[in-house]
Amino acid sequence: MSGKTAITPTRSENYPEWYQQVVKGADLAENSDVRGCMVIKPWGYAIWENIQRQLDAMFKATGHENAYFPLFIPMSFLEKEAEHVEGFAKECAVVTHHRLEPNGKGGLRPAPSAELEEPLIVRPTSETIIGATFARWVQSYRDLPILINQWANVVRWELRTRMFLRTTEFLWQEGHTVHATAEEAQIETRQMLDVYAEFAEGSMAMPVIKGEKTAGERFPGAVSTYSIEAMMQDRKALQAGTSHFLGQNFAKAQEIKFQSEAGQLEYAWTTSWGVSTRLIGGLIMTHSDDDGLVLPPKLAPAHVIILPIYKTPEERAKVMPFCEGLKKDLAAQQYAGEAVRVRIDDRDIRGGDKKWQWVKRGVPIRIEVGPRDIDNGTLFPARRDGVKCEKVAPAEFVAKIAEVLAEMQQGLFDRAAKLRDEATVKIDSLAEFEKFFTPKNADNPEIHGGLAYCHFVDSPEIEEKLKELKVTVRCVPLDGEAEAGTCIFTGKPSTKRGVFAKSY
Amino acid sequence: MSGKTAITPTRSENYPEWYQQVVKGADLAENSDVRGCMVIKPWGYAIWENIQRQLDAMFKATGHENAYFPLFIPMSFLEKEAEHVEGFAKECAVVTHHRLEPNGKGGLRPAPSAELEEPLIVRPTSETIIGATFARWVQSYRDLPILINQWANVVRWELRTRMFLRTTEFLWQEGHTVHATAEEAQIETRQMLDVYAEFAEGSMAMPVIKGEKTAGERFPGAVSTYSIEAMMQDRKALQAGTSHFLGQNFAKAQEIKFQSEAGQLEYAWTTSWGVSTRLIGGLIMTHSDDDGLVLPPKLAPAHVIILPIYKTPEERAKVMPFCEGLKKDLAAQQYAGEAVRVRIDDRDIRGGDKKWQWVKRGVPIRIEVGPRDIDNGTLFPARRDGVKCEKVAPAEFVAKIAEVLAEMQQGLFDRAAKLRDEATVKIDSLAEFEKFFTPKNADNPEIHGGLAYCHFVDSPEIEEKLKELKVTVRCVPLDGEAEAGTCIFTGKPSTKRGVFAKSY
Repeated sequence: MSGKTAITPTRSENYPEWYQQVVKGADLAENSDVRGCMVIKPWGYAIWENIQRQLDAMFKATGHENAYFPLFIPMSFLEKEAEHVEGFAKECAVVTHHRLEPNGKGGLRPAPSAELEEPLIVRPTSETIIGATFARWVQSYRDLPILINQWANVVRWELRTRMFLRTTEFLWQEGHTVHATAEEAQIETRQMLDVYAEFAEGSMAMPVIKGEKTAGERFPGAVSTYSIEAMMQDRKALQAGTSHFLGQNFAKAQEIKFQSEAGQLEYAWTTSWGVSTRLIGGLIMTHSDDDGLVLPPKLAPAHVIILPIYKTPEERAKVMPFCEGLKKDLAAQQYAGEAVRVRIDDRDIRGGDKKWQWVKRGVPIRIEVGPRDIDNGTLFPARRDGVKCEKVAPAEFVAKIAEVLAEMQQGLFDRAAKLRDEATVKIDSLAEFEKFFTPKNADNPEIHGGLAYCHFVDSPEIEEKLKELKVTVRCVPLDGEAEAGTCIFTGKPSTKRGVFAKSY
Repeated sequence: MSGKTAITPTRSENYPEWYQQVVKGADLAENSDVRGCMVIKPWGYAIWENIQRQLDAMFKATGHENAYFPLFIPMSFLEKEAEHVEGFAKECAVVTHHRLEPNGKGGLRPAPSAELEEPLIVRPTSETIIGATFARWVQSYRDLPILINQWANVVRWELRTRMFLRTTEFLWQEGHTVHATAEEAQIETRQMLDVYAEFAEGSMAMPVIKGEKTAGERFPGAVSTYSIEAMMQDRKALQAGTSHFLGQNFAKAQEIKFQSEAGQLEYAWTTSWGVSTRLIGGLIMTHSDDDGLVLPPKLAPAHVIILPIYKTPEERAKVMPFCEGLKKDLAAQQYAGEAVRVRIDDRDIRGGDKKWQWVKRGVPIRIEVGPRDIDNGTLFPARRDGVKCEKVAPAEFVAKIAEVLAEMQQGLFDRAAKLRDEATVKIDSLAEFEKFFTPKNADNPEIHGGLAYCHFVDSPEIEEKLKELKVTVRCVPLDGEAEAGTCIFTGKPSTKRGVFAKSY
């Protein structure tokens, strides 16, 4: 395959199409027969299972419990929080009937006699239905805090969809908590943002910026929204997780009240926070290359793929037991608190095809094992991160597997952080800002820009300019130092920089 | 509480109401604001997580992988399999619009301009949408078998609902597999039935009968349906899991074809199999008593609950470190391949209330620890299965915890099996059959009947009689010996007995 890449087109040729081909080549997902909904295939779902398991442990370690709430929300629930309606009413799947009947032409139709008195919407998010439940659970300050998480599917009717990044139905988790004080709810909001950042950087090897969203980018109904923002290889930003301080807005809409220690009836303070299968889109675009998916070891469904090579039944009788033994020895090792995940691919297909399938699926370490390798007592591992491997004795390979995986995990993070840092600039004039975000030439639209840290004053008037350049304020970083400056759009005095970028 | 029970009414007073009160008392679930949909509360959901984790491992050990398919099914997909339509069209939630808009009266309405060209139904089961996907995945015999499982929510519009047992939305897993031959598909169907039976008996401590359903009770579109059937304490049967051999019916409806080894284009053979949150209903009704839920250790979210008892800060300073140490020691023990699950309840509420909360929640072992227990070096554990415990030294309690839990798990199974076996009879005349299923007196409608093994010949004419008695054929047991007999309804010759019962 010298000179040729396993994925066509390459990132520099056509980044969006490269993305689709990586998804296809790695067998992660495909479009379904339902507009905007995808099928998550086993390899993609196994990544989601790893994400779930690791996040779930972090949620539980911070005191949260899982529960499950209805898929459907009565239409009237949406009406109670004005901003929330504004945000979600336009993209709701609406259930209006509860029965089909023959349409007299050999097909079916919704039965007119089974029309619902009140339409139900398929949850786009569950603040309203969960809030109504919490209102029943909370009586006294002794019932607080309530710390709940839900793993679920949600539906937002999107017109332009893209696998993992934006789909009509997607899988996610949504945390919902209730507190006695504003301060406690704010601490929770920030704690979960920290959990997301730790997961993104530690498990996904995806560096992120933690920050607060501007008013225009807040969750509908929130008092403040925080997000983690990552930079993809095309220098566009991806919002990878959000945590919302909802103040008393939803408590008032859903009547979540409690008797305080002082004996007064007060509205509670709530938060919500979520990440979704969109993370897999971020994972793909952070690490993958022109040969396909590259997976950080912590989330790889298999750490090691063993490919037995043989031509005759005799060779097979020699190679297979060796491979099984190697698999067993590797699986007895621990990496990141879990058993090393190993598979053997003994399918009867052409060796080259097989090898490239696993390259495109992003398995961190690949080993072909033939009779000669066994005779020589050496293995030639191949690392998916492009780092060259020396030949190694099987016992040593096994003994060092966790160390190598840890090194790969860190290496992927470092590479992504370097790319991002190199594409990050401080900009102090509008002219420079415009130049930064203007494509250099039409052939390579991605070779420009990145993340710009600029002084600004959040106001509707700057939106016009940003819209024109197709740039958004991603967030105001939480770790940004206070610094006197001037808004590059309005000339007004500013104390903090925001991060600006083109984005998904 | 002498003489009084924690749950009112008792099982013998009013079994259905007792069930609702056990669910409520154990904080498992509650009705939601959406008709027929429940909220699964943290304690109930933690049981479901244990069920999921253990079943999922069994599915993976038998070669299945998880994937995820769309929530929505185009209406036209249902039309393709005639029996399937018949079975599900009457209870479908139908999505007809994708946007809400203001209704001009301060509320919302489905936007007439956003009506879908083709309505979508919320999946009641996914044979059609998954089958359409499999049709794309399968080209050649080399692509087979396909062994997929999905964890998902489904919706069947039920008019009479009951928490866990029958709800409009429920959580389940649905396995879907494709095979090259009928024989292989049949083996898969039976294998998954065995997995379900092993799980029910091994993890739930719920004895089950494996059998084949009669034609009238088959899954809509299946060639044959197998089920596991359990007997509840009111002697009614509960279908706890089903496995379907679908023949080529869905392959033909969805065009799942493959090129055989001989080079011919053939329709594939498919199966599907599922269990749902209904299992939790079965778990409740198999073991619980008049003091509430009783959980088999393998599925209990906590094996041991430690209740610290103290009055003064000094006592607290003595008791809490001891409890933390005990928790740590217990959690370091293994039971059934997992760490022993221990919680400390240090909430500031009345000791008696606290104790009874945990009784009602069914935690296998409860220990109150006060300063005197520490001084004396003895613990007084209380077992939720009613077996009396001797006082025991802490170190011994820790050392024997796995043994005690295993004994409790087996004890619950034995007790349930005994109850079932005592309520199981062979019946050879219709008169005896009628007597068996006629309530003895109105006050105690459950003190009668159970499971009746009877010769019968499956035919529409016996249905009338059964309907009159409110009895159904649960299944024809797979382990039943061939035995010449006479159908008790028709007098026709029969070779096998079926199991008859009243049922959920």
